[in-house]
Amino acid sequence: MEPLTLHDDRYFDPNPSVRRIARSLYEETKDLPIVSPHGHVEPRLLANDEPFPEPTSLLIIPDHYIFRMLYSQGVRLEDLGIPTRDGTPVEEDPRKIWQRFAEHYYLFRGTPTGAWLDHEMSEVFGVEHKLDGDSAQHVYDQINEQLQSEDFRPRALFEDFDVEVLCTTDAATDSLEHHKAIRESDWDGTVRPTFRPDALFTITAPDWDDHLDQLRERCGMTIDSYADFIEALEDRRAFFKSMGATATDHAVLEPYTNELSEAKADAIFQKALRGEADEEDERLFQANMLMEMARMSTEDGLVMQLHPGAYRNHNQAVYERFGPDKGGDIPVRTEFTENLEALLNAYGNDPDFTLVLFTLDESTYSRELAPLAGHYPCLTLGPAWWFHDSIEGMQRYRRRTIETAGIYNTAGFNDDTRAFCSIPARHDLSRRVDANVLASLVARHIVTEKEAHEMAHALAYGLAKETYRLGE
Amino acid sequence: MEPLTLHDDRYFDPNPSVRRIARSLYEETKDLPIVSPHGHVEPRLLANDEPFPEPTSLLIIPDHYIFRMLYSQGVRLEDLGIPTRDGTPVEEDPRKIWQRFAEHYYLFRGTPTGAWLDHEMSEVFGVEHKLDGDSAQHVYDQINEQLQSEDFRPRALFEDFDVEVLCTTDAATDSLEHHKAIRESDWDGTVRPTFRPDALFTITAPDWDDHLDQLRERCGMTIDSYADFIEALEDRRAFFKSMGATATDHAVLEPYTNELSEAKADAIFQKALRGEADEEDERLFQANMLMEMARMSTEDGLVMQLHPGAYRNHNQAVYERFGPDKGGDIPVRTEFTENLEALLNAYGNDPDFTLVLFTLDESTYSRELAPLAGHYPCLTLGPAWWFHDSIEGMQRYRRRTIETAGIYNTAGFNDDTRAFCSIPARHDLSRRVDANVLASLVARHIVTEKEAHEMAHALAYGLAKETYRLGE
Amino acid sequence: MEPLTLHDDRYFDPNPSVRRIARSLYEETKDLPIVSPHGHVEPRLLANDEPFPEPTSLLIIPDHYIFRMLYSQGVRLEDLGIPTRDGTPVEEDPRKIWQRFAEHYYLFRGTPTGAWLDHEMSEVFGVEHKLDGDSAQHVYDQINEQLQSEDFRPRALFEDFDVEVLCTTDAATDSLEHHKAIRESDWDGTVRPTFRPDALFTITAPDWDDHLDQLRERCGMTIDSYADFIEALEDRRAFFKSMGATATDHAVLEPYTNELSEAKADAIFQKALRGEADEEDERLFQANMLMEMARMSTEDGLVMQLHPGAYRNHNQAVYERFGPDKGGDIPVRTEFTENLEALLNAYGNDPDFTLVLFTLDESTYSRELAPLAGHYPCLTLGPAWWFHDSIEGMQRYRRRTIETAGIYNTAGFNDDTRAFCSIPARHDLSRRVDANVLASLVARHIVTEKEAHEMAHALAYGLAKETYRLGE
Repeated sequence: MEPLTLHDDRYFDPNPSVRRIARSLYEETKDLPIVSPHGHVEPRLLANDEPFPEPTSLLIIPDHYIFRMLYSQGVRLEDLGIPTRDGTPVEEDPRKIWQRFAEHYYLFRGTPTGAWLDHEMSEVFGVEHKLDGDSAQHVYDQINEQLQSEDFRPRALFEDFDVEVLCTTDAATDSLEHHKAIRESDWDGTVRPTFRPDALFTITAPDWDDHLDQLRERCGMTIDSYADFIEALEDRRAFFKSMGATATDHAVLEPYTNELSEAKADAIFQKALRGEADEEDERLFQANMLMEMARMSTEDGLVMQLHPGAYRNHNQAVYERFGPDKGGDIPVRTEFTENLEALLNAYGNDPDFTLVLFTLDESTYSRELAPLAGHYPCLTLGPAWWFHDSIEGMQRYRRRTIETAGIYNTAGFNDDTRAFCSIPARHDLSRRVDANVLASLVARHIVTEKEAHEMAHALAYGLAKETYRLGE
Repeated sequence: MEPLTLHDDRYFDPNPSVRRIARSLYEETKDLPIVSPHGHVEPRLLANDEPFPEPTSLLIIPDHYIFRMLYSQGVRLEDLGIPTRDGTPVEEDPRKIWQRFAEHYYLFRGTPTGAWLDHEMSEVFGVEHKLDGDSAQHVYDQINEQLQSEDFRPRALFEDFDVEVLCTTDAATDSLEHHKAIRESDWDGTVRPTFRPDALFTITAPDWDDHLDQLRERCGMTIDSYADFIEALEDRRAFFKSMGATATDHAVLEPYTNELSEAKADAIFQKALRGEADEEDERLFQANMLMEMARMSTEDGLVMQLHPGAYRNHNQAVYERFGPDKGGDIPVRTEFTENLEALLNAYGNDPDFTLVLFTLDESTYSRELAPLAGHYPCLTLGPAWWFHDSIEGMQRYRRRTIETAGIYNTAGFNDDTRAFCSIPARHDLSRRVDANVLASLVARHIVTEKEAHEMAHALAYGLAKETYRLGE
Repeated sequence: MEPLTLHDDRYFDPNPSVRRIARSLYEETKDLPIVSPHGHVEPRLLANDEPFPEPTSLLIIPDHYIFRMLYSQGVRLEDLGIPTRDGTPVEEDPRKIWQRFAEHYYLFRGTPTGAWLDHEMSEVFGVEHKLDGDSAQHVYDQINEQLQSEDFRPRALFEDFDVEVLCTTDAATDSLEHHKAIRESDWDGTVRPTFRPDALFTITAPDWDDHLDQLRERCGMTIDSYADFIEALEDRRAFFKSMGATATDHAVLEPYTNELSEAKADAIFQKALRGEADEEDERLFQANMLMEMARMSTEDGLVMQLHPGAYRNHNQAVYERFGPDKGGDIPVRTEFTENLEALLNAYGNDPDFTLVLFTLDESTYSRELAPLAGHYPCLTLGPAWWFHDSIEGMQRYRRRTIETAGIYNTAGFNDDTRAFCSIPARHDLSRRVDANVLASLVARHIVTEKEAHEMAHALAYGLAKETYRLGE
């Protein structure tokens, strides 16, 4: 078995002068508390504070970054224990799955998933051997043993990770019962919900009616018109805000925005109620709802996040057998300049409104996003997202946005993860890469070392907190 | 107050072997005369040679790179003294504006605007303190004092900057009176106009009639038909050429080219005269006029420049209150291969025709522009433009074009600025970055140091002069 | 005359720690046999094994990388001896052409063409002087002399280059007579055909009928229906396979895939037979034929290659006078996510099917291709292609794909060349660049040196052999 060691200078440029500065900047930020303004950890975890299950259920089965890579090399999802929608049996032996994973772990060489997992195994679980076919069962045992200790309960880890605030992502119709339980508990960790109403806006989806019914139930009102619908959404936003939310989140295929007249919006809403809405109706309705969400944000102060460009469930067979979020979401080309024109013209000059933009299309960084963010008061750029949340990806992001938008029109880091135990690894990687990017500026005499220290602090901590209004 | 110092090795790679070569290449080019073949300095400046106003009016109010960044962070344009179209009063105290700017100067960390300003303050005005809230008034005083000296008159600076030739950009209907004044003066600086007829081609614009009337007046002819219009344009081009012009310039949203029959072109022109032209008419008319401009260039030898891809005045509220060029122009995706097919097929094989292409869409560098420029005799790539006129931007430009088009299908550097005092800073930055790019080739044994010296000279001086026919 | 020397560390990062590792990785791969799974060498060369002609006919006239660059700088193709379609005379003196080429050789500074040629001249032909106007005739003599030796016959060079297997690209209707001759000869070099049926799918092309007639002749069957056509294609694929083919190749403008009903496909086929098919018919037919090719690959095991995004013969005048492949092919923007949806949903989950994707649109690397390849079992990414088959291009390719797809979803290297003598230069450059990319990972502690050695071996040899099933 080979030793698993994390080098102190990992991800830093090998040039000695850059490395020296990067180290010094990282030294400044590595122990800052974690501000996690956007992610997908289940609040239930922290409400119940029950022990995590064994390693395979914790680390492999829920992580689509992992199983999509094994799937791409011909490993069946069934053999990785991914549950089927119809209950067809799949592999149930966690050790067999773990062994299979370990034997394919070489696939992650050079990937952020590999970097995160190594960090997680080494720093969170104290594993001392590189994962491969030989070490698999040994590593499994070690993690498994740790998971049974009190120190590895979710709340204990939350504190150990030094998480200052963790924001979850919650359906607009969610009861927020787990958030309520956390707030009412004697535990003082800060966990905040985020308002995500997407399912209420996809009016052609087969389950739209169900989501609308849930909305009716939550709000205790009839919703027969667009006006009712808007009122219900405002009601839910107020509820989320009362439960600690500071932000909303919106995922769309294209970031098209366009205001409909109330009459037109209601006509589409009525069609949707009758089950007659078509794709173009949905496109217009979503474009209009983004406008409404922006308007409400200017009124209630919730920060608006927009995540466009993921073509969901590209692989129908995988979707039908295993459901959503199984590695089959694929980016598409995204256009911001024309699509956001309506929204930015209506609300973009309001300095109290914050719209955080994300992209999966890196060609938009320097072409559209940095120029937009370097002009409109409302705009802030979210960090490198998803497939681009990586060492090279983050460097491309900074190098293509800083010259036009600076760093102060960007939102710090988001871990965006549902993998709770990977949070420290992701923040650490981000802090290292930002330190390295800044060190490269210092070494080329573009900024001074003193300036870089202030910038590093902002990128690791201050900007996320300010952008998402988490200090208020 | 902190000292303002420009490091001798700024922008160079920190690797010692690259840095040593970069220094040596930069040593070769740093004192070459400035050839500025494309920019927006007002010829009036050099015609009148009056003292510049105080620092705020000189450096902040006209510079949309600066105030767009402050605006993006919530500073009102009124508070920066940007004049309103309707005369609503704005901040008039230049020291208050300067103070506000200085307090936000940290926003420019890592941006070319910050690099240019530091250079300008240090090298042109001899400022010794970093600009911030504390040093603001002191720096203001120092620059202000300098501006009152004879040595800081425009012509004196022109000579001090060692500008061999400066090309301005002038409406096709401009009288060129300031150019005339310069030519008739006893001052021997070389300032050339550039023919920019855009306003005559946007036939749906409310002020198109006014521009056409000006054209009639300048040419002293009736313009009732497309044939008249073409004749008038040829007349103006001849006039510009007689006044020293060697180039034309054309800005369009998309670089669509398409030749219309004379009958069709005239039909659209007649619609435009009646005020009935629509967007599609304008699109076709512009596409046709690019063809006409290319044709005329093959005849009169004026170098044609094409600047596509800026969506102008994206922010309506800013445009309506403050006018154009206020930081609200945003790039859009641009397509060259199909859009330029008609023009290149008609004129692209003529080696005496030069078409200089610019882009705001960096994804086109390696995909379309370098392959096109590496084939068509007429094509030359303009330097990294606008948002990409920056340290990282220029490096991306070179790294993505040199392997397919080499450097000899590129046009050297354009400063493209209306900020006269920033000209040396911009050329210096470009020479440093090109030296660094070439040094990286030498250090990797891709070109020899001797070759790199020739290339550095070409990039800093020779290519601009040749491409724009400024030595003829 | 200046000496021509190839530096041992060329293309490696100048940082000493990266360089040391790169050297060590390259040491591992530099002497591995050449696996060339995709290219355009004429099999006739190796069937006849006749001496190559003099240097100009060998190195300049057939190489569109070379003459497109000279053409872009105003050198007439006639003056480079490029034969015209109508037989109009062109320069016939090879020494004059060579001199002209040598005088313009500086244009290739910083290009892969320059790097390949220097390698080829130095390592294959033993040239010791840099090519320029002064050395031109001397270099010509030296190469010319070598070409007359037995050691410079194609088969001798094949062995000297240590080519383990060379795949050619052959029209679906090709008799494969040269492949037959090679197989029946006493020479034991491995040369395999690749099935390329494009000409049979472009149903609006004037010569489609001719290609169909050839197909009829080769298969000895009537082809009056779509069903016949499919049968004939299956027949040809079987023949190619029997002759050693392991792959097919498909070039399209856009990678649109869409299955037609047999009735609809036949209707279009009948229109095509009547000469009435239009562009939209062709688009649908091609999209359907890609589906059929995938289906057949799942049945016969031939690896499918897809090369989209080249707009062919952009320059009509050059095409009409000199024919195809004369440097006038220009890339266009390419979309994969939506275009490949039909094909991937039908066949993409089959782990026995291999589809190798190439692109000329680098913006798709991280946005579409790596996410697709990191999920679908069938997908493998081909190496950086054509204009991107270069030092910077390969580095962009790796840096934008490895973090999402790893290296094990990529296909190793393709030289993709018709220039036989450039094969070692191209593989050497690729091995050096991959060594450098991996060294950068090691130096930043992202992978270990041991891992990098395994990865280097895979990139230089193993992945190409496995992907293309060349070891089977």
